[in-house]
Amino acid sequence: MLELWLVGIGTGNPNHLTLEGVEALRGAAMILIPRKGPGKEDLADLRHHILARVGSPAPVAEFDMPVRDESLPYRERVEYWHDQIARIWTQTIDRSRPSGPVAMLVWGDPGLYDSTIRIAQRLDPSPKLRVVPGITALQALTAAHAIPFNTVNGAVTVTTGRKLRDHGWPDGAETLVVMLDAECSFQRLDTEKLYIWWGGFLGMPDQVLIQGPLAEAGPQIVIARAEARRRHGWIMDTYMLRRTGT
Amino acid sequence: MLELWLVGIGTGNPNHLTLEGVEALRGAAMILIPRKGPGKEDLADLRHHILARVGSPAPVAEFDMPVRDESLPYRERVEYWHDQIARIWTQTIDRSRPSGPVAMLVWGDPGLYDSTIRIAQRLDPSPKLRVVPGITALQALTAAHAIPFNTVNGAVTVTTGRKLRDHGWPDGAETLVVMLDAECSFQRLDTEKLYIWWGGFLGMPDQVLIQGPLAEAGPQIVIARAEARRRHGWIMDTYMLRRTGT
Repeated sequence: MLELWLVGIGTGNPNHLTLEGVEALRGAAMILIPRKGPGKEDLADLRHHILARVGSPAPVAEFDMPVRDESLPYRERVEYWHDQIARIWTQTIDRSRPSGPVAMLVWGDPGLYDSTIRIAQRLDPSPKLRVVPGITALQALTAAHAIPFNTVNGAVTVTTGRKLRDHGWPDGAETLVVMLDAECSFQRLDTEKLYIWWGGFLGMPDQVLIQGPLAEAGPQIVIARAEARRRHGWIMDTYMLRRTGT
Repeated sequence: MLELWLVGIGTGNPNHLTLEGVEALRGAAMILIPRKGPGKEDLADLRHHILARVGSPAPVAEFDMPVRDESLPYRERVEYWHDQIARIWTQTIDRSRPSGPVAMLVWGDPGLYDSTIRIAQRLDPSPKLRVVPGITALQALTAAHAIPFNTVNGAVTVTTGRKLRDHGWPDGAETLVVMLDAECSFQRLDTEKLYIWWGGFLGMPDQVLIQGPLAEAGPQIVIARAEARRRHGWIMDTYMLRRTGT
């Protein structure tokens, strides 16, 4: 039975790795690393850097991430893509015949807006799954701004850029954290009475932080995000919105 | 100017500490540890254990947490309590005259349903604040159950037991994570079409996990929680609820 360890590595700062993560990467019999295509070599490089730093003796196998078929509708596209990735994992692992657990380094936390657990559940036969929790963009964002995630006894809704575009501000929400938003979807909101805390490359040397009333900070973020993305070829960013006067 | 480092230590598993947390605890000039009163010595002991493990050379100062005045209404009680804690921090730090940054070990993450940042903001003069993110109960829960936090493109509302009791299931929510719930407030929900994943002492040797349709798992959780709490004298627990068929 395949044992698969999904290790959360945090948001790009090698020091986000936990002691549990260090032990898992040192103890694995094989490490699987995705290659995400041209312009995103940083993401594979970071994983190699982390492995070198923790002194993992495990052999590394790289695999190419398939490209999403943009002609399919959203749900089908995601389903089909996950199937493809599961097949590639199986092929890559079968070729290496590891003698023990296979580990993967997962950006942030394996459970939070990441498909790794869902892909692992498609493997046949089912692997034995171990999830090592990691620092998420939620914590990296609030830590960088030194702000609390929630108000006293307050609720927080964590959502996606797509959902914010399709459904607007959720009814009754006071605080919103938006993930996976490549389109600065906050631009569609009524800016009145909203405050934003935004962060790109959170925890990394190139971290960029902007905060302020959405009416003023929003346009600054659109420009800063585009510039940072052009410079790196990619960007990871997250933001929190809160109704002011709450 | 006082420099205050708030270091997230995760949910009770010393291996939840990040490499950044290890460096901060080793580099601090003084460490502040709260004593939370009889029956909760475990919580202070865990902090001492972590310091010993990372080999922090910093002197440790303990302080007694004040008791909340239950005669006050909720908001005032919390405000007054935070003021008291801020005064005790100031007195304890002033007595020790640290030559550099003062670090505190914060359960979970300093931003997530924790008052440490809010208390730090009451210090006068204002300290220079550094927040080191930590593994939260959200990640510890989903990792222990090896489940994703969100559905594909789904939103998650993080809320408190008090809010769930006062306002019921939030309009339109699909997934709810409930923090700070000493009263198993899920008992007030219509159990139909809800699935629950519950965890106590997440990441610790005594971790207890229960999952299932709320109608069946709910009563089991009430019993298991009461038993675990009696055995330890305290409990930290969290749960996630999701509408089934979504």
